[in-house]
Order: sequence, then structure tokens, then C-alpha cells
Amino acid sequence: MELQERVAVPIFTEVDRDVFLNEVYPGRSPAVLRGVDLGPCVDRWTVEYLAMKGGQREVKIHVSSVPQMDFLHKNFIYRTLPFDEFVKKAAETKHSDFFLAEVGSDQLDLLRIVFLHWDKLLALGFQEESYYLRSLGEDVRKEPADLSRQFPDLAEDFHTPRYFEPDRFFSSVFRISSCGLQLWTHYDVMDNLLAQVTGRKRVALYRPQDALHLYLNGDKSEVLDIDAPDLKRFPEFIKAKRYDCVLEPGDLLFIPALWFHNTLALHFGVGVNVFWRHLPADAYDKKDPYGNKDPVAAARALQTLERALHALDELPAEYRDFYGRRMVQRIQNRTYCHNPESETTLPRSLSHKPGRVSKDL
Amino acid sequence: MELQERVAVPIFTEVDRDVFLNEVYPGRSPAVLRGVDLGPCVDRWTVEYLAMKGGQREVKIHVSSVPQMDFLHKNFIYRTLPFDEFVKKAAETKHSDFFLAEVGSDQLDLLRIVFLHWDKLLALGFQEESYYLRSLGEDVRKEPADLSRQFPDLAEDFHTPRYFEPDRFFSSVFRISSCGLQLWTHYDVMDNLLAQVTGRKRVALYRPQDALHLYLNGDKSEVLDIDAPDLKRFPEFIKAKRYDCVLEPGDLLFIPALWFHNTLALHFGVGVNVFWRHLPADAYDKKDPYGNKDPVAAARALQTLERALHALDELPAEYRDFYGRRMVQRIQNRTYCHNPESETTLPRSLSHKPGRVSKDL
Repeated sequence: MELQERVAVPIFTEVDRDVFLNEVYPGRSPAVLRGVDLGPCVDRWTVEYLAMKGGQREVKIHVSSVPQMDFLHKNFIYRTLPFDEFVKKAAETKHSDFFLAEVGSDQLDLLRIVFLHWDKLLALGFQEESYYLRSLGEDVRKEPADLSRQFPDLAEDFHTPRYFEPDRFFSSVFRISSCGLQLWTHYDVMDNLLAQVTGRKRVALYRPQDALHLYLNGDKSEVLDIDAPDLKRFPEFIKAKRYDCVLEPGDLLFIPALWFHNTLALHFGVGVNVFWRHLPADAYDKKDPYGNKDPVAAARALQTLERALHALDELPAEYRDFYGRRMVQRIQNRTYCHNPESETTLPRSLSHKPGRVSKDL
Repeated sequence: MELQERVAVPIFTEVDRDVFLNEVYPGRSPAVLRGVDLGPCVDRWTVEYLAMKGGQREVKIHVSSVPQMDFLHKNFIYRTLPFDEFVKKAAETKHSDFFLAEVGSDQLDLLRIVFLHWDKLLALGFQEESYYLRSLGEDVRKEPADLSRQFPDLAEDFHTPRYFEPDRFFSSVFRISSCGLQLWTHYDVMDNLLAQVTGRKRVALYRPQDALHLYLNGDKSEVLDIDAPDLKRFPEFIKAKRYDCVLEPGDLLFIPALWFHNTLALHFGVGVNVFWRHLPADAYDKKDPYGNKDPVAAARALQTLERALHALDELPAEYRDFYGRRMVQRIQNRTYCHNPESETTLPRSLSHKPGRVSKDL
């Protein structure tokens, strides 16, 4: 049987701003940065401390009866509760109080499915609820999250790495999840440093060039179970090259814009994502608090493509198929980088300074 | 080594209008129709008779120093001469009078290449000039060819099969070529019956769904030598499924619109192509004497796609590559027939009436 190709994300152990900007960033490949000073958060952010400093600010969280969250088919519900309560709940291994026991009639269908498949869920390791917080801005629909505004007391403990110009800063986002929580594979349009402050996290990444192997639905992959994919439904998935890493507390992971990523919390853990602009500010959608709307030029191209597809609608199926392929060929010739393989290896400078890369590479 | 899949084009031996319309045409797959009455042309069209009846009407022919004609890199020149002279020349095995000896300075580069590679050309079987006529309408740029207008005396001998409504008729075209002449792989947008009146011809066809494996440049494939393709340059070509047949004098070959075809004259031979409209008349470009301009809806879609691609130009290469792939995915989901294999097998009705298909199948 064919196996999916796997490679390890390189681990850099002596990274300062210069090394990042000259040796990591230009490669536009993911990289684990180990040993960077993230500030006192690494030692201080216990459950009790977070609850105390974060206070009773209300947060909207994802609650799921299974740890593998599925945004496309929405196997979770949203609940709002005070931050301190959430942190304690997410860190617990047993929960005394299930949100899913409080659901209204609108969630009855979900409940029905859960109960119908109770045995199967138990067999899959389902035992309790999973919780996940992705912090939001003040005005949820307009403003990106900013730790220093929503959680100023905690933000003081976290030192944002100065790897980009301050005016390129887009958002800083809390990622707090209970043990076992897995987030669907997706991409963001901003460059991203994921700081794993506490807990361990496994991250699998895929190149933007593997987009066609991931069965996208918007910015998300339909392939939920990346470790045991349904290859009958997703035969191309095997062709996606998987980049693997396990983040230890204190690690940073550079996730370049457009790289797909899937996270699996190996412990209850607290992370902070820092997003910044790779492209000029006006290249991005101005109404995009999450940083996942396609750059305006790309959105325009995709819209124009819809018009082209609409033109084909008046032709019979076999003609649509044929001219669809002619269009595909044109796009391949016009936009594909010719040697995708050669462009996704490590940044070239790496080969000159192997000392910077740890033995884990 | 991987081999290109090959299948034989089915041969139908008892085809009348009903059988064609009910059992062949709906399948939209190529089919050899053997034993259809093409009229007295089959017996009468000797070189002498053609020269006499076709007369001295001037025709524009393709002359090449190699039998494998290459429209994309134009390895031939056009020459105009009386029809009777052309027919005699094309039927000769040795030519006393070489057109390529008369070339002007504009063809010097071609000549230089020919002479530089003389040894190689000899080794490849190059011995003499090859000739090819594709007859044209009265007003070459506006009017499709019509045998009954350009060669009324010869047209009388040829009975156009009545397999379509008369108002769907588009053109009838003489195809006369010297032995060994091979025509580049291309597609036409009209349905087409190729009547092989005299001589034998090998035809290789490829499905419209194989467009991406044929390295198209407009309506033509870049892969010239389909029998010994350069797989380093054209690695995907191996994936194209090849449909093969050898037409005997008197055979008809149904070539559905959009099917790619490549012809190789095994003898000096005379053929007539009859093209007709598969789609409603207003679906086609009105200025298209050759029947190879894309239907207006398809042309519009391809033009609109150019605008979409233009929008991507302001993004860096890696973003263009990524959004190119997003566009490709969208097109695949929107236009590709889901089971291309199942749609290109023989028409289903065939399986019920195997008696109609000869043993050569």
C-alpha cells in the first residue's frame, strides 16, 4: 500500500531576530523555534493563575462531545461562560457539569446521533466533553483579537517575538484546549507564530501546493481523521506530504501563510498565536477579524472564475468537462510554480549553517 | 516501464441511419463504420480520374520535407498549384521537382536545419517531400469548404451519409495526402465523419477527458511523435488512453466533436471529412471556416478566466500557485464528469446487440 510521505519540521535552537529573518522566514516553510524567551508566562500560567488573572471576562467557547472537532459538519456547540470557569473546566479530566446535557431543542438532532452511536463513541475513546477557546476581539465581527486588550494582565507575561515590524502586527489569539482536542486542517492568510506556552501539542502541516490533495471546502479540509483517512472517499490525500512536529512548552512554531495545519493537544494546554501581515496591508480584506479571508486579489480571481464557470453552463456536460480541463491547463501553465518540490525544501541558507539546527531535525 | 493504455475503436458493420442515431451517435465515442455505401467514388477515384475531374482549380497545399507535419513549429511551407498537378505529385513515390528547392530567404533557416540534420533525416526515413491538401471554401477566411461547390464533378461521386439533418451540415473537406504523411493531434468542435475513399489510414484518437495529458497548445498537442513520445518532456502523455484504428478504403470513421485525432496515411489516399453541428447553430463562432474555434460560451469562459488570472498577478508567486490550485479545485468540482471512465466506454445499447459489432472489436 502506498504511504503518505512524512517529513519532520526542522527545529531551530538558536534563533534571534536576525536568524529568523535571514534563515527561517525567507524559506516560507514551517519551523520550530526552540529556546526563544517567551517571558514569564512559561512558568506562571498555571490553571489557578490564569483563572485569577484572566478573571470573569465572558468568553465564547467550543464544546464538543468528541475530541475531533469538525467545523464543516459542526459537531460542536458554542457556549459562553466566564474565562476563569472555562480554564478550570478545560483543565479537568472529569467534568461534573456537561454542557451537552443543557442543550435546547435545536441541538436535539445532534444529541440523538450522539446517543444512537454511544457504543461507537465509547469505543473511539469518547468519554467526556472537549473544550476549546479561540479568543476574539472586542467587536467580534470587526476587530481581530489582541491579548493585550482582552487579557492585559496575562498579556504582560507573554513576550511577543519581535520578528516583524510592529505595523505588520495583525492579532494575538489565545488557544486554550482540553487534552485530546483536535482542530480541523485549515489555512490562514497571515503569517503566524504559534507559541505553545504550556502543554504539548502535535501539529501536522501540509504545503499550499498540496491544496488539491486535501479536499478543501473553503479554507478547511474535508479530511478530518488525518491519521486514519478514508482513502476511498479521499484517495488523493495519500499524495499530500505531511510535515510533523510536537511542540513542547515554550516552543514557537512558524506557520507561513497558506500552509495547512492540524493541531492535536497532547495535554491541556495554553497557546498564543501571533499573526502578522506578509503582504502589504491593502492586499488583505479589511473586514477579516480571523485572518482567514483570501487576499482581495485572490478573492477577485475566484469571483471572476465563477463568471467563467457560469458561461460554460449553457454547454452539455461533456463540453463543460472538456473546457473545464482546458481552463485547468491554462491555470497550471500560468500560475503553478514549475518545480514545486524544489521550492518546499528547507531554506537554502540552512545547508551552510547546520550548527543552528538541532539534532532533532 | 509504464505503458500507454490502448484500445481498439469498435467496428460496426451494418450501420444505417437508425443504427447510427440510436446506437453509435449517443455514445459520443469514435466508431468505424464499415460497408456503408459511399457512392461510386470508391471505385472511380484513381489519380488520373481525380486529375481529370478536379481540373486545374488552384489549391493551396502543405509541403514538408518530413512526413510528420508540425503545425505548432511550422516545419512545412504552403504552395499553390493546380489540383491535377497536386494529385499526381502526391501520388508519386519519387518527385522530380522539389518545392523546397525553390524556397526564398525567409525559409533559409528551415533549410539550414534540414541540411544540418540531413543524416538524421535520412536515418528517420526522410527521402522526399510530403504533400497534403485540406480543401478550403471559396472565400478562405469566411466560408467553410464544400466539395459540391469547389469540386462539383467529383462531389457527384461521393454520397454523404445521411446521418444528420441537412440544416446541421457544416462542411465537406478533401483530405489528400502522400504516403506516410502524419497530421498533428488536434480536436475539432464539430462532429465529423471521415470517409476514407482510397488508401489506408491509421488514426489514433484520445478522449476529450485526456486533454491535460496531451500538452495542448490551443487545439493542438505538443506531442508530435505519438509512437515514440519524449516522456521526459511529456511525462503525462503516458496517461492518455489511445484509441486505435486502421481505416480501409470505403470506411467511415465517426470522430465526435472534441475528440483528439492523429492521422497517418499508410498509402497515398483520398478522404472526405463531413462536419456537422452537434450543438445549436448559435452555439458556434460565426467566423470559423475550419470548424475549430471553440463554441462561443467556451470562448467566453476562457476569456473570463484570463481576467481572473490577471487579478492574481499582483500576488507573489507562491500565492499565485496556491490560488491557481484553489481555482483548479473549483473547476474540477464544478465541471468534471465524476466518472470519466464510465462515460467513455461503448454506448450501453451495444451490449444488447453484439451482432452489430464485427469481430475486429
